[in-house]
Order: sequence, then structure tokens, then C-alpha cells
Amino acid sequence: MKEIKIFSPATVANVACGFDVLGFCLDTIGDEMVIRKTEKKGITITKIEGYDLPFEAENNVAGVSALAMYNDLQPDCGFEIEIYKHIKPGSGIGSSSASAVGSVFGINELLGKPLDKTKLTFYAMKGEALASKCEHADNLAPAIFGGFTLVKSVNPLLVLELPTPLDLYATLIHPQIEVKTSEARAILPKEIPLSNAITQWANVGSLVHALHTSDYDLIKESLHDVVIEPYRKQLIPHFDEVKNSVLEVGALGCAISGSGPSIFALSKGETTAKAVQSAMQNVYSKTDIKFETYVSKINVQGIRVI
Amino acid sequence: MKEIKIFSPATVANVACGFDVLGFCLDTIGDEMVIRKTEKKGITITKIEGYDLPFEAENNVAGVSALAMYNDLQPDCGFEIEIYKHIKPGSGIGSSSASAVGSVFGINELLGKPLDKTKLTFYAMKGEALASKCEHADNLAPAIFGGFTLVKSVNPLLVLELPTPLDLYATLIHPQIEVKTSEARAILPKEIPLSNAITQWANVGSLVHALHTSDYDLIKESLHDVVIEPYRKQLIPHFDEVKNSVLEVGALGCAISGSGPSIFALSKGETTAKAVQSAMQNVYSKTDIKFETYVSKINVQGIRVI
Repeated sequence: MKEIKIFSPATVANVACGFDVLGFCLDTIGDEMVIRKTEKKGITITKIEGYDLPFEAENNVAGVSALAMYNDLQPDCGFEIEIYKHIKPGSGIGSSSASAVGSVFGINELLGKPLDKTKLTFYAMKGEALASKCEHADNLAPAIFGGFTLVKSVNPLLVLELPTPLDLYATLIHPQIEVKTSEARAILPKEIPLSNAITQWANVGSLVHALHTSDYDLIKESLHDVVIEPYRKQLIPHFDEVKNSVLEVGALGCAISGSGPSIFALSKGETTAKAVQSAMQNVYSKTDIKFETYVSKINVQGIRVI
Repeated sequence: MKEIKIFSPATVANVACGFDVLGFCLDTIGDEMVIRKTEKKGITITKIEGYDLPFEAENNVAGVSALAMYNDLQPDCGFEIEIYKHIKPGSGIGSSSASAVGSVFGINELLGKPLDKTKLTFYAMKGEALASKCEHADNLAPAIFGGFTLVKSVNPLLVLELPTPLDLYATLIHPQIEVKTSEARAILPKEIPLSNAITQWANVGSLVHALHTSDYDLIKESLHDVVIEPYRKQLIPHFDEVKNSVLEVGALGCAISGSGPSIFALSKGETTAKAVQSAMQNVYSKTDIKFETYVSKINVQGIRVI
């Protein structure tokens, strides 16, 4: 095999209660990438479509993760990368993660899969660090493993694969405004009330239990964020309206996707997920802000060859 | 049925990472209580052995929980309570909880079980509040439900029953010193670093996943408390020595039981649990502090008629 085409999915990090540790994988939104083995050594980005991103491998998220892996493995060939970017950078649904993951996954496939998923996540973190200035895996892990993941720790990297209830759907709205990850980080307090922390870890434990038992009522009870949302929602116009309106039409929960500005909701069944989409559209249609919405089953496979 | 005898077990709250929400039930330590139906209305405590506790129902933990339930149910009979107290008050293994739980469980049995376990926990909280000045359920829930429990919320009360891996054993040491719950509460910070909170909820999520998957290695990775232990261990002499020595002989984890002074460890298998007991004894044998140690399988049944 000399060349493969892959689908590198968008992802939702934090999942309401699990700031910095939880995430899940989407199915209908993602980048496409072509990875090609070359005789010429090194990593070369030969094509970028969709968004204006750097071609130099060392300045490109996909390039940096690929280089980290390439330099460790030292294969006797090189790789060309074509990026067909569909996930808008800064949307809050793992755009840089999809890039970082795509190159390492593709190279691993072409080399006969010498690395496991945790090791791929490890290298993808090097690319992610270029975008977010620190090493995170809460978007990378669900993109690579699929389904719901919990990043237990980053150093050493330990990713847990959580079960995904069959009938769970995500709905997203991406308001076309810019929320910089750095700004979204800066707005957070360095210290939080112990009482809020307790509520949050009760919710995390409860959500993990709910995923294991496919208990949709308990998923609903668990999808609350008392720590991060009160700060970050200020950066997202009409957040409360969106949240209230989707809960009214039956969403299990609704929160900020990653550092925003995208907002996600989880629902039981596609019908509800689509009603949630309409409710989201209704809120933003009354504003001057452009937006896109998506409905997606949870993607239990993660990144894949297409 | 006019009279029953019950075993009301000791419990471990917090379980390292899950301050205020997690708990598990012990098997070899607990109080015995006799509950007897009487023609005379009301709740009467007729016997207390083991420790010096108030006989007036309204001043006794078991009496208060029984009265709360009795006043709501208004049965056409009364109840006598005999308490054979084996769990030392202030030991940190749920002494007041065992009392609070015993009376409501016993009365419920004699009335033909009109109430479910959550409702019993609700009434037991009224008794627990007499001892700890606020309504908690992290010791009550495991005593009533058995196994591992997560108290998702107290108001409304929502208790989750977590699975218990078959081969899990607890070892405890109770140093005979006094640590008042109020003091153990007062030493805690009102605010904690967000980064520590994140570590803690990763651990809680991870422990819940580990219990579901019977993953002992992951239980070990999860049994860390970066939030409470650094403060409370100051109240427990030789805590670090005990912890280090039991981890050396194979314990999965070791932390403060409830608000202390008892220290618990979890182990895979009874052999390791007994080696852990010896290690605990070795540390305290070199001191002037009297102590007791226990080894117990996790009690998945909880409180029971004997």
C-alpha cells in the first residue's frame, strides 16, 4: 500500500462535567486526508484545501505530529500529506486534533501499524501542542479511539475507552464567531470552590456509570457543568437561550463543546436530535450571527480509512 | 414478625478520590441491633451496650432517624431499639451511620418493607445530621445498598450502586486517637486549585470505570486523593509511613477512611489484604498509640437481618 485516504473526525471535548478529561467522537463532520509513501525522506505537505494553513511541516499541526512520530520510527521512506480541511479552525470541535491525528494514523497504516492507539495519541499531542500551547488529549483520544474516552492522565498517557449507548446522538451548533482557546483558558479561575468540585466529580462518576449501564435518565442527570460553563458561556452569545430551548425539546443535556464557540447537545434517538437541531437554529436565526448545525451519531470507530 | 436482630455494617467513605460521594461497605465490622414491635406508640431505646450514648430517642442518632421515619409513616404500633455498639464513635468508619441505618432498616423490615433503599437512606440522613451537623449519605448509602456506592446528589437524594469486583478486600487500621469530624472539616480549604480538581474527577471517573471492568490495575491508578489527604493526613500520626508500607506489600491504594483517623487500603485477594494488615501493625507497633486492625471482604449485601 502506497497511499491511503482517511476520514479524521471532529470531536467534542469536556462533555459538560468532564473538563479536560472527557470527550466523544462525531461521525458526520471531519477532515479528509491523503497520506502517500515517498522515496524521498521526510514529511512534506503537498496540498491544503478548505482553510489557509501553513505548508511547512514544522509549522503545521499535522506536520508536527507526523514529524514527531517519523523521527522516532525512522522509516526508510518519506510521506506526503494532503489535507482537505472541513472542520473550521477555532470552532471548538477539535479541528487541530483532526489534523494532528490524521497524519499519524495514516503513516501508521502505511507502515503496517507498528504503533497502538495510545502511542498514536502520544504523537498527536505533539501537533496539538502547536495549536493550543500545551499538550492535551481530550479531543485527540476520542478521534483515535472512537466513542467516549476519558483521559485519565497525560503524563504518563492513559486513555480509557468508555462504552457508548447505542441510541445516543449529538447535535451541534457552530456560531461563526471567534473564541480563541487562549482567551477561553484565560477566563477560567485558577481556584474553584471545593463544593463545586465535589458536584463536578459526582457528575463525572455518574456519567461514566450511566454510559456503562446505558441509563439515559442518568446521562441527563450527569450532564451538568458547574465549574467551567459559568465563565465560558459569557463568550458565546445566546448560550442560555440555546440550552433552555434544546432541553425543552428533549435533549439530555447541552453544554459548550471544548472551549467553544460550538455548543453541543446529546439526545436519545435521531428524532429528538433533529428537533434539537431545529431548536438551535431557531435561536440563532433571530440573530445576525451566521451558524452551522450538525446532527451525528456517536462515532464508535473513530478515525478510519475511506 | 415482632422482633428482629440486625447487623449494621461499618463503611468507608470517600474512597481516596471521591470525597463526599463515594463509599463502600465492610463485612467483618458492624453494630448489632434488636428492633421490637410494641403496642405502646413511639420510639424507645431500651438498651445500649458498648459505648456510652444517649437513651433519649431525640438525642440518639438511631432514635432521630427512626423518629423521622416513624412520624411520616405513622404506624399503629411503636418500636423498641436495643443497640449493641461495636463500632467506636469517631473512628471514621461510619459509626453514627451504622446506628442511623440500623433503626430505619429494622423498622422497615418489621412493617413489611414499605420503603425502598433510597427512602431508608433519606431517613437515616436525619439521624446522621445529629452527629455530623449536616446531611450526608456517603457512609449511609454503602451501609444500606452494600458494595460501592456513589451519592450523585443529596437533594434530591440519588444513590448509584456501582459494581464490586469479586476479589477486592479492604484492610483498616484504627489508631485510638480522636479526630473530630468538625475539626477534620475545618482543616479543609474552601477553594482548591482547578488543576487538582481535574485530577480528582479524572480519578473518580476512572475508578467507576475500573469497578465496572474489574480492572485492578486501573483501581490502583485511580485511588489517589490530591485534594483532601494533604490536609487531613496532618491529623493522623504516621499516615505516610502506613501508606508507603502497605503500597510496598502490594495494596492497590491507601487513604484516609472518611474523616479519619482510620486508614483503609484496598487489595486484590485476601492474602495481600493480610500482608497489608501486618504492614499497618508494624508501623503502629513502634509507637505508643493503641490501634485495631481489620481485614474485610467488600460487603455487597449491606445491612442484613441475622
